[in-house]
Amino acid sequence: MLKKILLIGFIALWFSLGPLTGSAIAADEPKIDTGDTAFMLICSALVLLMTPGLAFFYGGLVRSRNVLNTMMMSLLLMALVGVTWSLWGYSLAFGATASNLSDKGFGQGIEAFIGNLNWAFLSGVDFKPDPLGYAPTIPHLVFMAYQMMFAIITPALISGAIVERMSFKAYFWFIILWSTFIYSPLAHWVWGKGWIGAFGALDFAGGTVVHISSGVSALVAAWVIGARKTYPAQPTVPHNVPYVLLGIGLLWFGWFGFNAGSALAIQYDADKGPYAAVAFVTTMVASAAGGLTWTIIEWVFRGKPTAIGIASGFLAGLVGVTPAAGFVNPMGAILIGSITAVVCFFAVSLRAKWQFDDSLDTYPIHGVGGTVGALLTGIFATTTVNSLTGDNGLIFGNPIQLWEQFVGVAVTYIFAGVGTFVILKILGAIMPLRVNPAAEDRGLDVNEHGEQGYGEDFATGMSYSEKLHG
Amino acid sequence: MLKKILLIGFIALWFSLGPLTGSAIAADEPKIDTGDTAFMLICSALVLLMTPGLAFFYGGLVRSRNVLNTMMMSLLLMALVGVTWSLWGYSLAFGATASNLSDKGFGQGIEAFIGNLNWAFLSGVDFKPDPLGYAPTIPHLVFMAYQMMFAIITPALISGAIVERMSFKAYFWFIILWSTFIYSPLAHWVWGKGWIGAFGALDFAGGTVVHISSGVSALVAAWVIGARKTYPAQPTVPHNVPYVLLGIGLLWFGWFGFNAGSALAIQYDADKGPYAAVAFVTTMVASAAGGLTWTIIEWVFRGKPTAIGIASGFLAGLVGVTPAAGFVNPMGAILIGSITAVVCFFAVSLRAKWQFDDSLDTYPIHGVGGTVGALLTGIFATTTVNSLTGDNGLIFGNPIQLWEQFVGVAVTYIFAGVGTFVILKILGAIMPLRVNPAAEDRGLDVNEHGEQGYGEDFATGMSYSEKLHG
Amino acid sequence: MLKKILLIGFIALWFSLGPLTGSAIAADEPKIDTGDTAFMLICSALVLLMTPGLAFFYGGLVRSRNVLNTMMMSLLLMALVGVTWSLWGYSLAFGATASNLSDKGFGQGIEAFIGNLNWAFLSGVDFKPDPLGYAPTIPHLVFMAYQMMFAIITPALISGAIVERMSFKAYFWFIILWSTFIYSPLAHWVWGKGWIGAFGALDFAGGTVVHISSGVSALVAAWVIGARKTYPAQPTVPHNVPYVLLGIGLLWFGWFGFNAGSALAIQYDADKGPYAAVAFVTTMVASAAGGLTWTIIEWVFRGKPTAIGIASGFLAGLVGVTPAAGFVNPMGAILIGSITAVVCFFAVSLRAKWQFDDSLDTYPIHGVGGTVGALLTGIFATTTVNSLTGDNGLIFGNPIQLWEQFVGVAVTYIFAGVGTFVILKILGAIMPLRVNPAAEDRGLDVNEHGEQGYGEDFATGMSYSEKLHG
Repeated sequence: MLKKILLIGFIALWFSLGPLTGSAIAADEPKIDTGDTAFMLICSALVLLMTPGLAFFYGGLVRSRNVLNTMMMSLLLMALVGVTWSLWGYSLAFGATASNLSDKGFGQGIEAFIGNLNWAFLSGVDFKPDPLGYAPTIPHLVFMAYQMMFAIITPALISGAIVERMSFKAYFWFIILWSTFIYSPLAHWVWGKGWIGAFGALDFAGGTVVHISSGVSALVAAWVIGARKTYPAQPTVPHNVPYVLLGIGLLWFGWFGFNAGSALAIQYDADKGPYAAVAFVTTMVASAAGGLTWTIIEWVFRGKPTAIGIASGFLAGLVGVTPAAGFVNPMGAILIGSITAVVCFFAVSLRAKWQFDDSLDTYPIHGVGGTVGALLTGIFATTTVNSLTGDNGLIFGNPIQLWEQFVGVAVTYIFAGVGTFVILKILGAIMPLRVNPAAEDRGLDVNEHGEQGYGEDFATGMSYSEKLHG
Repeated sequence: MLKKILLIGFIALWFSLGPLTGSAIAADEPKIDTGDTAFMLICSALVLLMTPGLAFFYGGLVRSRNVLNTMMMSLLLMALVGVTWSLWGYSLAFGATASNLSDKGFGQGIEAFIGNLNWAFLSGVDFKPDPLGYAPTIPHLVFMAYQMMFAIITPALISGAIVERMSFKAYFWFIILWSTFIYSPLAHWVWGKGWIGAFGALDFAGGTVVHISSGVSALVAAWVIGARKTYPAQPTVPHNVPYVLLGIGLLWFGWFGFNAGSALAIQYDADKGPYAAVAFVTTMVASAAGGLTWTIIEWVFRGKPTAIGIASGFLAGLVGVTPAAGFVNPMGAILIGSITAVVCFFAVSLRAKWQFDDSLDTYPIHGVGGTVGALLTGIFATTTVNSLTGDNGLIFGNPIQLWEQFVGVAVTYIFAGVGTFVILKILGAIMPLRVNPAAEDRGLDVNEHGEQGYGEDFATGMSYSEKLHG
Repeated sequence: MLKKILLIGFIALWFSLGPLTGSAIAADEPKIDTGDTAFMLICSALVLLMTPGLAFFYGGLVRSRNVLNTMMMSLLLMALVGVTWSLWGYSLAFGATASNLSDKGFGQGIEAFIGNLNWAFLSGVDFKPDPLGYAPTIPHLVFMAYQMMFAIITPALISGAIVERMSFKAYFWFIILWSTFIYSPLAHWVWGKGWIGAFGALDFAGGTVVHISSGVSALVAAWVIGARKTYPAQPTVPHNVPYVLLGIGLLWFGWFGFNAGSALAIQYDADKGPYAAVAFVTTMVASAAGGLTWTIIEWVFRGKPTAIGIASGFLAGLVGVTPAAGFVNPMGAILIGSITAVVCFFAVSLRAKWQFDDSLDTYPIHGVGGTVGALLTGIFATTTVNSLTGDNGLIFGNPIQLWEQFVGVAVTYIFAGVGTFVILKILGAIMPLRVNPAAEDRGLDVNEHGEQGYGEDFATGMSYSEKLHG
């Protein structure tokens, strides 16, 4: 099976010579804003950095014998999705036929559900602003790159649910399929020219596309693949909590790019001012409020505030504000951060109580947090912040918005849940989804990668094998 | 006590609904510059990243049994101050009544000493440049967020002096009080519309407000709280020096945002050019010169240059140039970095010789370095770099500036020192300031947080408890 | 010897007072673009962050007894080169007499080979765009600072070849000499006003200047200094692979600044659009393709994909695309990333087979990768991406370009190789180049720095010395 990858790879590379010669990069006076472009380039870099951040967040939470495998589940996607997104993923998500758009600018017929392949191999993605008007003041290449970073981190989030047991080979194929058949369509529906955007559901930076989709898929994957063989009999102690704190630090830092960058410009809306600034501030205060709320709850109800707790609270706040970031004001964001943290706290507790092995709480944080955030967006959104792409929420007199949010959420649950189930069942018929029990005991680092995270015994300076054999 | 926090929290959240509905975000032609705003948004993110950086810098220097508590002392402030700054801290620091300003634009009467509450709950903090003219080319929201990051890291610096013994609960309350009653007034005096700025003392990015205030408070806190019970009998060996190096790397990276961002724009001064560029370069070369100087001194006088030494030298250089960054030229910055490193080196040596348990040398670096930097600013400042907000120093013929710098320094010493003493004495009357001796032995991670940094024995892959119980 | 450094240091500081008083920072309407300047400032910070990133990449690959020495080899340069670049390095590399330039804007006579000292001590480096037209929309100070970051990381790359044995003192002097006599001239030839640029070889962000020069020097240094005494008898197991992954994460993140920033502006070319955007995207996809290719090759030929493998693949892709980043389109970059990864994979294998102790594979990655990238630039470059500073490559009908690339590569090999040999031979006649064998056994951290990376035994919480002595 694996040798075929090489073949496929070379075929892909061969085809890629096409656009090389045919690339039509010519410029008829693009109106690129240097400030906007600088901002979006740096935001793209920030979002990429989230994936190594996630590798440390997740890597610190597992046992040391699985640290590399866990980190590889994130890092691999920087390679794999980075390539597939260029070759077909981007075009499937954001491509549309300009002449086939509705009056309101959305895709019709099949293009309400999936993009086309016009931009496959990045053909036609050039210096000029994209022709569909996604981001009118930056080069199309920058918009594509920014979206690539989202496509990379979203499936990486899923891995938290199935660490310490999933076969790396099965994970490799799962990601190719999930990225192509779940992520690209969903991104098209919500942010491309697809039907959910047309329907009116708001999702500023990925409550549905990123967090609910990955969270629900994590839930299904943990269920299909099953619990770790020692779970819950043996408690799994995080092997390195400072890594978790490094992870959340990098994630928060990158999240400014994720949320503020989703404005796609500094000043997009001439009438209402620069809502990138709002998204930046709402992200900041929601994360702070989430961390503070979680800390206080733990302190009051459990007696001690934990480091993993405050990191989880920050994460919950960030997830909760993601769909809302450019639609609410800062005080709305504080409420969203706090409420999301409260709900996620109890979701994590329930998950533990029910002994369901979503190992690193991907669904209780990303799935539940994304759901809470998407619904609260329908409550707290206000056109005083964003009248161009936003709408008022419930408390500003528009109950319809809450219904639209609910539909967006429900559709994502169904699509991601069923899709992930189908993908895993098909894949499971072709290859084993998990490593064998002996490998699980020994650790996936040695079994799947032939490596150990920490090659030496810290006390003696000898490598493990030196020690073992004398 | 702690259960009351929940109550207070919910009350705060309730009040926060006010600005939600009343928010007056309307735009009458703001002249926002996209380059400036992009720059300040990224700088804000960079300054936030310094706090996790500090967590690693400090966390690596303590024993592994206290690593999480030490890191939590930084991370908590990203939650706590992030919220209090939004609710009242920002308004106390930067609020002022426009109609009550003096001819030169400073607050009068009570507003020379403390801001008002007009911007509490971020009411009126919106898309437009702030009405008081702090930063005329970026949204008020961005200026507020940028200042928030400073308010977060400043009290975190204090924690270095009292690690491995202070009660986390007492720390929580200490920070709320310190942040409100020391930081906000001081920021108002120097950067707001307060009397030190009116008096003429220069502090570009926080020599007094950030470094002297935290350094002096650290000194007082270490004195009031007392030494660790095993100090100085048992030497404390840093448990992870690479963490310290990661910390200084992130701190330096973030410091570009801290100092260059303090220009509040790329091109603020039409006549003199973009002094953000100057502040960037002075920061870079002062840090380099500080690290090189410390390395050479250690090599010559102690025989070997250490990793903690070069990190301390970088830090000293960065602290020293902070008040001067936008007022001196690069060669002045090299001198400031070198001189500050020399003085801090001897301050650290004296601290160790006198066996005073400012555990991680917060005063000798931040207090002493900030003092040296603030005074050298009065010597090396030149209006050829910055004639808009700056002034000439001693060697350019203006000895008055050095006197003004001295007054700024002295006032900060007295205010921060006395204020911290009073806060800790009041707090100490209500709750114990430190953990009990048994907990100190066992480590604060388990005692205060119920967690361990490294849950497994690296050699066996077993958790500590697995090992302990069989 | 070392005490003389202090003397030299103080003399240098004294001279630096000259420009302090004489600084001619006056502004006659500079046309600074705020977006460009914001971008270049942040890119400068990103490139600086690569050096701590490299410290972790290399530090994780060595044994724990040498982790600090290895990291110090990178960190020292942030201090040392940061200062020497300001004092003389920058002027040697980029200085030129405006009145002496050829019609095509290149230096003549001696200035084809080395810059002058007009900008020594940063005299004349001010707010305005540089007078030679390197970067017309940003302050000269920013261009200088950006180039400083390159001068810092380039020699740090060399250290990978000679870790775990080189004397730190010899390394200190080696860097001063290499930086002055190899880096500055080479930068002058290619990016300054020197003869290789005039000849027509393309090097967008440092294939020759950074990667070939450091890679070839690494090869020579490993040969002159010799293998570690236990090599290859004892295998050296990386002591912390997560550090390697953190390192590659930070390197990749910073590389966006390195490559996209090498456009020196967002929109430099009014006709062809912003090629910073192209360089950003080519960097991203080449790295992804490199990582994916390496992973697949390892999987197919070795049975398991490793974490160090994917990190090496990312690095190979990044190195390969560095000379090409602003000259090729994204599909060209995918090919370059893949091809470079394939070649580097076999180069690493051969190095291991031949048991040559270039300890961390600096030449097989940076030297070979830089060579492949520089040559492929001559094949895939296209003026549809960049007609201002670029040219067409072989497949677009210009075989001359490949010849020009070959000459650029060959000259760099000879100059860096011979130069490094001479420097090390001279230095070796004055002082020992490596530590003594006993010190090598004990580890360089204790021997060269009097420190240990991990001061405590993780299992007992005791420091090593506590443990040793009871």
